[in-house]
Amino acid sequence: MRLTFACGLVFCATLAPALAQIPATQLILGFRPESARKQRTLEARFDAALRKENLREWMQWMTAKPHHLGSPFGREVAEFIAAKFRAWGYETGLETFEVLFPTPKTRLLEMIAPEKFSAALREPQVAEDSTSGITENQLPVFNVYSPDGDVRGTLVYVNYGLPQDYERLEELGIEVKGKIVIARYGGSWRGIKPKVAAERGAIGCLIYSDPRDDGYFQGDVYPKGAWRNAQGAQRGSVADMPLYAGDPLTPGIGARKDAKRLPVNEVGKIVKIPVLPISQADALPLLTALGGPVAPELWRGALPMTYHLGPGPATVRLKLEFNWKLEATYNVIAKIRGAERPDQWVIRGNHHDAWNFGAADPVSGQVALMEEARGVSELLKTGWRPKRTIVYAAWDGEEQGLLGSTEWVETHADRLRKSAAVYVNSDSNSRGFLNMSGSHTLEKFINEVARDVIDPQKKIPVFERARAARIVNGSPEERKEARERSDLRIGALGSGSDYTPFLQHLGVASLNLGYSGEGAGGSYHSIYDSFDHYTRFGDPAFDYGVALAQTAGRVMLRLANADVLPFEFVSLGDTLGRYVTEITKLADSMRQETAERNRQIQEGTLHAYFDPKQPYVAPKPKPEVPSLSFRPLHNAVAKLQESSKHFAESMNQLNRAGRQLSAAAEESLDQVLLGSERALTRASGLPRRPWFKHQIYAPGLYTGYDVKTLPAVREAIEQRNWKEAEEQTALVAQTLEAMSREIDRATKLVRGSLGR
Amino acid sequence: MRLTFACGLVFCATLAPALAQIPATQLILGFRPESARKQRTLEARFDAALRKENLREWMQWMTAKPHHLGSPFGREVAEFIAAKFRAWGYETGLETFEVLFPTPKTRLLEMIAPEKFSAALREPQVAEDSTSGITENQLPVFNVYSPDGDVRGTLVYVNYGLPQDYERLEELGIEVKGKIVIARYGGSWRGIKPKVAAERGAIGCLIYSDPRDDGYFQGDVYPKGAWRNAQGAQRGSVADMPLYAGDPLTPGIGARKDAKRLPVNEVGKIVKIPVLPISQADALPLLTALGGPVAPELWRGALPMTYHLGPGPATVRLKLEFNWKLEATYNVIAKIRGAERPDQWVIRGNHHDAWNFGAADPVSGQVALMEEARGVSELLKTGWRPKRTIVYAAWDGEEQGLLGSTEWVETHADRLRKSAAVYVNSDSNSRGFLNMSGSHTLEKFINEVARDVIDPQKKIPVFERARAARIVNGSPEERKEARERSDLRIGALGSGSDYTPFLQHLGVASLNLGYSGEGAGGSYHSIYDSFDHYTRFGDPAFDYGVALAQTAGRVMLRLANADVLPFEFVSLGDTLGRYVTEITKLADSMRQETAERNRQIQEGTLHAYFDPKQPYVAPKPKPEVPSLSFRPLHNAVAKLQESSKHFAESMNQLNRAGRQLSAAAEESLDQVLLGSERALTRASGLPRRPWFKHQIYAPGLYTGYDVKTLPAVREAIEQRNWKEAEEQTALVAQTLEAMSREIDRATKLVRGSLGR
Repeated sequence: MRLTFACGLVFCATLAPALAQIPATQLILGFRPESARKQRTLEARFDAALRKENLREWMQWMTAKPHHLGSPFGREVAEFIAAKFRAWGYETGLETFEVLFPTPKTRLLEMIAPEKFSAALREPQVAEDSTSGITENQLPVFNVYSPDGDVRGTLVYVNYGLPQDYERLEELGIEVKGKIVIARYGGSWRGIKPKVAAERGAIGCLIYSDPRDDGYFQGDVYPKGAWRNAQGAQRGSVADMPLYAGDPLTPGIGARKDAKRLPVNEVGKIVKIPVLPISQADALPLLTALGGPVAPELWRGALPMTYHLGPGPATVRLKLEFNWKLEATYNVIAKIRGAERPDQWVIRGNHHDAWNFGAADPVSGQVALMEEARGVSELLKTGWRPKRTIVYAAWDGEEQGLLGSTEWVETHADRLRKSAAVYVNSDSNSRGFLNMSGSHTLEKFINEVARDVIDPQKKIPVFERARAARIVNGSPEERKEARERSDLRIGALGSGSDYTPFLQHLGVASLNLGYSGEGAGGSYHSIYDSFDHYTRFGDPAFDYGVALAQTAGRVMLRLANADVLPFEFVSLGDTLGRYVTEITKLADSMRQETAERNRQIQEGTLHAYFDPKQPYVAPKPKPEVPSLSFRPLHNAVAKLQESSKHFAESMNQLNRAGRQLSAAAEESLDQVLLGSERALTRASGLPRRPWFKHQIYAPGLYTGYDVKTLPAVREAIEQRNWKEAEEQTALVAQTLEAMSREIDRATKLVRGSLGR
Repeated sequence: MRLTFACGLVFCATLAPALAQIPATQLILGFRPESARKQRTLEARFDAALRKENLREWMQWMTAKPHHLGSPFGREVAEFIAAKFRAWGYETGLETFEVLFPTPKTRLLEMIAPEKFSAALREPQVAEDSTSGITENQLPVFNVYSPDGDVRGTLVYVNYGLPQDYERLEELGIEVKGKIVIARYGGSWRGIKPKVAAERGAIGCLIYSDPRDDGYFQGDVYPKGAWRNAQGAQRGSVADMPLYAGDPLTPGIGARKDAKRLPVNEVGKIVKIPVLPISQADALPLLTALGGPVAPELWRGALPMTYHLGPGPATVRLKLEFNWKLEATYNVIAKIRGAERPDQWVIRGNHHDAWNFGAADPVSGQVALMEEARGVSELLKTGWRPKRTIVYAAWDGEEQGLLGSTEWVETHADRLRKSAAVYVNSDSNSRGFLNMSGSHTLEKFINEVARDVIDPQKKIPVFERARAARIVNGSPEERKEARERSDLRIGALGSGSDYTPFLQHLGVASLNLGYSGEGAGGSYHSIYDSFDHYTRFGDPAFDYGVALAQTAGRVMLRLANADVLPFEFVSLGDTLGRYVTEITKLADSMRQETAERNRQIQEGTLHAYFDPKQPYVAPKPKPEVPSLSFRPLHNAVAKLQESSKHFAESMNQLNRAGRQLSAAAEESLDQVLLGSERALTRASGLPRRPWFKHQIYAPGLYTGYDVKTLPAVREAIEQRNWKEAEEQTALVAQTLEAMSREIDRATKLVRGSLGR
């Protein structure tokens, strides 16, 4: 999973009376009143079946040894999960793929000048952590999908290693061509750092954990506290994931044994220069040995030294060799066939593979999913059957780049396009606030669920806690909205967990759910992500594990049982309106900034200002930003908002009239709704990355995890490609028009039943 | 002087043609055209007389030994300066006062639990600094005007030790009553820290230099770089300076030998609890031994540890004993009698006392003043005589609290009220940008001067460099203004150097001038403020020492020679309008914030939000902020703006008509203008601090250095004293009305001469 720091992305609502008093007759989106009444009884029974002891027991078992992709215990974990599902009555299988997983043969990092130093590249055992001494099958500190390499060069400190950091270095007269860069973790997905470094001509890349972002600056370090200690380091994938997810050798197709594979040396997704993650302790001697200008203030971390940029005198040798082998993924797939609409699938997943012990990432989410599934199975014992098919998945190989989920999605793409209604993901989970992200067609639906789950600490709806966080931390506008808007806005999805192939490759409406914000961080992708760490700092009583099971469980039970799939389009239209406004403002502010910068160059202000004793390269004027027309997008969004309003009004009329659709009409409507998110994709995908087909949500080419909404247009603007921005504006407008037609089809079906 | 970091407060303009091409006939404010022509010739001769070698030679001599108040070499330095002035033809005297200057007999700081540690309290010799080994007469690391004391207590980290920091501690359930606080330097004048700590019941106070604000985080440390090293510490006064400046025993009167003195134990200005400054090295073991909650993010410095708040377990003993003695100040006063208006004085000052060697503070400013005075004396040799009397002053005892200047001002108050036209101050000076602060009646005047001095590095007017800095660093509004407004706004004066008694006690229009922003900091009030440090990092070639001499020299020559004193009131009216807007917004935003906070308490949002596992004390609602009327102030400012416009128009008519005032009328007008700033004072002073009489500018009661404009009203609002805010609004409005009447008197004199 991706890392979110404890500072927390949290979501947040008028403190309403506690849920307990809400009458069981309250309506639920997608349910007729009498169905809603039954559903609430079912959900109460579901809640009552959940046992937090199970989460603890399973976590302790699953985190006893390293269980990464390709490890013996990894397979045992998959079989353990499969056995549970089978025992609970699920139709269960283990589905395997063969994926590229290079592991290190040689890892060498030395400083060769001005002093000798050998990096330890090792996280030591700590007495308070009972699994930290287990070295058998432990994956060492490395970045997967680094190439082999043996490079020597002077070192340059590049802050987070993002494009804007290199622009700043250029102003200071520092180039990285032929040099080795050292970047700190943070600011983007880690794979962006070696990618940008290679684009600028660097020959190697080190990524270290600075205590400012991820260590003692944040809080006491492990084992005294939760935070990363001096020797702690962060493993992780560095493939160019924004190009495509999944196995690097089989883009777009399932990595079956006999699949046609790319040769490794033709894989564009594998980064071009050797890259290694190191601890603060290994980084300190290297950074201390840098000369050159003092780093800009915002670049300085919390190491006890003056941050310099170099280049050199620190000179390092980085030698990496990998065993370039295929490994088998073990995905656990468990189903309950729908009683009425078996060809409509609601899918729920969480990965089971870890970097090593992985108590937080991913076991905290996995055990909540398992207890949720067991709760559902308890309902089966009472004779209940879901209307739609429920699929539970435990994915393998997520850490290398969503391998298990992506290969499964690519393999079953046709079936999923036809049948998949919604994918619901989770990953790491801890104490705190409910995070809700996903397709905005599900914004209203997930808000309803959040109003019905009670926070285990505060005994108020988790919706209210999330709302309180937005009121306390938000800007005045965000505060006003959190108080006055009926729903909390949900986040848009970038990447970093297994929803990506579903949402962005296939166009399956998706949700990503989890609690966080009060569990202390610091163990991410370290051997210290252990049962001992998690039960001290993550969610000691597993209360939020149960809260996640209640939340995602309700989501699954409602999606499976609803009379009509609970999609809603007014929230989508509202959100798209905001995105188009953002893009318009982005172009405007780039135009103003470029004009101002050029003016400062031309009128001589920059020359008058700079200190002649400091390094400084006068910047050159940039071409002006032309006036761009986003009218096609504005028009398309206006149309979509109109269509959404009509659909919502039709559904309301139906309800107010006390009428209900015929079973056949309900199923037809469901078919339209089920496929609606597909209308937001284009078969040709995004420019230069055809695998990513969704036109509203994508991971950023230069952020990796963080979403870029309306990515084709937004990234063209960011890259100052005005022609492409204009072309893509037209294409995205067409996509939105297609979506409006789908919504109009749904409206027509409802109006038909209303006799109009 | 006060410390300003290198990040810099700088002032900033369309790059005009270089000055060299500006015709000598250009008008100068206060000068008739033909006088202006002569004046420019005079100034060119003045510039040509300046020699930077003198600055270097004098600095080297004056920084050879410690020369603080009461030291043998301090007296020698005063005599050296006096001898120079005498040699240059000035009527020169040494004027002495007897002032309270306690120096340490005992300084002891130990940690007694959980481990033993004795603080070194000493800055070691460094080989690269030739005076750092001179220990004879070196003042150790201490805070002057700490009381004697011997206290033991658990330690609490209080961030900068400001009132809002204690509010935050309260929310976290931490009290300082009976405890010893440790605060970091910064965020306010240092004397505020023990004052607020004592108000909250603390029994002792440590102030340390955190490397985040003042050490390796900022840049390489001494001697490798300019910044404060681990053992470096900051001496300084901790008297409650915002009550009154000068000798603590003789508020409001000159500290002559036979003056009536307060007993030391009745001096409200002496802080109530023992206080000691310590280095980063001495602070680290203490801070590392703190437990309790982790400090809020913005409170954390750059020490390699997790910042905790305590209280304890660190427990310390602080023992301080002082020798409570009187010392003699030696002020050098040097005059040139005015040829035409001898009773109009223009006064120029810079202090000569240091904490120890004091190359930057104050010698860099002092040697520029001396070279300026020598340049003026060269003009005397050509037969030129100033129209008005010129007074040069080198003050003693500034570091303890502006003792020399204040006692001189208090002693000669009657004479100064009658004769002082303008006081021009400087202090530390280094490479960079011209800082202009002072009375806004002089804003236009000092901008003209800044257009006529050429920056030694860039060969453009220093005005243009200052303007460039505002364009580069400013907000869009500030940028627009810097480009379009004819003058750069000058800063308002708080305190921290010798202008305070002139401006804020007597109401003498004042300017404070200096260059900074490119000389690296870190030696402030340390033994490493040395010739070696300054000539490596401050102003190695003394170019900006000469630039200061040119700037302040022009100011003096123009003030001394002008046909009419160059006061201008439109800038004042403009500035006052902004201050009243600020105050209105301050009250409005406090009202909104209070209402929002109360709402969050009442609706339960804060309760819903906070982490139950973290320390948290639910805040109580605060009384609502009433609606305040600032109408009297708005009206008074509108009147003043009207009067200012009339005066400016009258002067313009006079010029356009090619007319000139009679000598008698000029002198009458001068008398009105000379006294005009006095109209901005009230005899009763500010609430609870009658010594501060100026109604527009004062140091903040809880900032110390930083100015509070319209202080009586602004601080009443800040302290939520709504009744006083209303009363003071009326009084300040009366003051502004009095000022308008003075301006109207001036206008009448001019119109009289125009025959209307």
